[in-house]
Amino acid sequence: MRAIQISEPGEPDVLVLGEVGTPRPGDGEVLVEVVAAGVNRADVQQRKGFYPPPPGASELPGLEVAGRVAELGPGTEGSGWQVGEEVCALLSGGGYAEHVAVPVGQLLPVPRGIPLADAAALPEVACTVWSNLVTEAHLAEGETVLLHGGSSGIGTMAIQVAKALGARVVVTAGSQDKLDACRKLGADVLVNYREQDFVEEVKRATDGRGADVILDVVGAKYLGRNVDSLAPDGRLVVIGLLGGRTGELDLGTLLSRRARVIATSLRSRPDAAKAEIVAEVRRHVWPWVEDGRVRTVIQSRHPLARAADAHREMEASAHVGKILLDVQEA
Amino acid sequence: MRAIQISEPGEPDVLVLGEVGTPRPGDGEVLVEVVAAGVNRADVQQRKGFYPPPPGASELPGLEVAGRVAELGPGTEGSGWQVGEEVCALLSGGGYAEHVAVPVGQLLPVPRGIPLADAAALPEVACTVWSNLVTEAHLAEGETVLLHGGSSGIGTMAIQVAKALGARVVVTAGSQDKLDACRKLGADVLVNYREQDFVEEVKRATDGRGADVILDVVGAKYLGRNVDSLAPDGRLVVIGLLGGRTGELDLGTLLSRRARVIATSLRSRPDAAKAEIVAEVRRHVWPWVEDGRVRTVIQSRHPLARAADAHREMEASAHVGKILLDVQEA
Repeated sequence: MRAIQISEPGEPDVLVLGEVGTPRPGDGEVLVEVVAAGVNRADVQQRKGFYPPPPGASELPGLEVAGRVAELGPGTEGSGWQVGEEVCALLSGGGYAEHVAVPVGQLLPVPRGIPLADAAALPEVACTVWSNLVTEAHLAEGETVLLHGGSSGIGTMAIQVAKALGARVVVTAGSQDKLDACRKLGADVLVNYREQDFVEEVKRATDGRGADVILDVVGAKYLGRNVDSLAPDGRLVVIGLLGGRTGELDLGTLLSRRARVIATSLRSRPDAAKAEIVAEVRRHVWPWVEDGRVRTVIQSRHPLARAADAHREMEASAHVGKILLDVQEA
Repeated sequence: MRAIQISEPGEPDVLVLGEVGTPRPGDGEVLVEVVAAGVNRADVQQRKGFYPPPPGASELPGLEVAGRVAELGPGTEGSGWQVGEEVCALLSGGGYAEHVAVPVGQLLPVPRGIPLADAAALPEVACTVWSNLVTEAHLAEGETVLLHGGSSGIGTMAIQVAKALGARVVVTAGSQDKLDACRKLGADVLVNYREQDFVEEVKRATDGRGADVILDVVGAKYLGRNVDSLAPDGRLVVIGLLGGRTGELDLGTLLSRRARVIATSLRSRPDAAKAEIVAEVRRHVWPWVEDGRVRTVIQSRHPLARAADAHREMEASAHVGKILLDVQEA
């Protein structure tokens, strides 16, 4: 089959289209014929050599796809999925390819009303947002959440899920265009991090109280200011380290607010934990996608062969929402 | 009434016995005639001027007492408590005195089999341990918990509660005598922090996996090593800052283990939250006290007038378990 391989760690040009063996579905796995794949920041980190696949995962990049069930592996015959059925899936890797083998618990139906090729925009961000905002941080109705990078794939999903949960949403982004996009998705308070201090803006928006939940991809560079932005009983969830990994933590501030710092990732979780998250997303987020409360936000599509262009676009950071790869030409 | 006042921030001698007005029970409060009061590390911090009472709390030190109900304040008539009944109580302050006014939700019965004057050893440590190990950290059967300062008041309670929950217990302490005391209470793995590296010992005791939960009173000085000691999905709960407040946090390590740092305190919580913790302790810990699974561990008793001696003993850190003040002479 055709697939994108990482020839060596480096710039986008190391993403090379080639022929590799089609994977065989193992025990409890289903083979999916891929129609489209989502591009994620983690794929860029993997390409650069900073984020090796977890043990047992495909070496190929790609954490989510949409496509059709091509083959049911051993032990999945009674799972209810049918050969030919349209699906999307959360992966541990291998999505930049014509076929991928997926643990059956990580399959999702394509939500009603979403074109198959667009459904590749959903699994990774929906699972990331749900598992972090809800499972980890217990974001509740009436609370305030601060979302860094509100216009990213994760950000655009997080805004909508947080609003659907009844939370108040503060977002940061680096341009007025991006902030406008966030507002259209429901964000209540917009902070341009190039011109404004987000700590101050969060305090202003909450009568000095702070944010109940913060979802952060920056890491060390924002650690101190994120902790300063937390409300009593606040939860800071760090899911990316774009601004470095080691920072100063003021435990005194944290203690006086009875607050917590959670750092987590979806990809490293065991299959059983992923299946649980996928089941929750199907139960809670899919109905919102189907009734229009949560929309897919797609910036652009590139053919599989041009995966390097997709990575360049992501690294330029001018996009809003998801960047997709079309694996089968329309 | 007689009470210990802090004449100015400083050494133990600033604890001065004097006459102050007897408090009146406010709405939803009960007046308790104090028989004995527990001494806590937080009282020492308060005496030094590092830990001011929360807004609305008594300026007098003392976070727990045992005694008798002396008067039911407005709105507590139907609460089920009777004048003359023996009780113990979790306080926000004011325990080093002949009377203290307590929100009714913070009263506890004296567990069957525990002498009234010994019950002052229980409320603060039981509530601290339960709220942190269970409510915050969700310590579960079969998990491993690392308890720093295993021979302290909190430590001796935490060992017993963790064992009653079915956890495996690793403790640190600074002498063989203290470690022997921890072993008698059920600790499985003993680490002398003066001679051994606790990170290494925790790894050795868990086949390299690490501790699922850590309860820490040291703060900054241990932050890095605590994070290094965490297992995947581990929870570090910081409830004291004896080793400083600001330390380096490696978010990369935290993220790769999907771990969290929680910093919290009992005293600053709203009354409603305290009442919830007290109710949980009564439901879950009191039966263990009554069937002997959890014992009171009392190092020494001092008359109220000698509160300074009690603080000196605590600061010398040679004690095992609780130090109490007798407010009524036997």
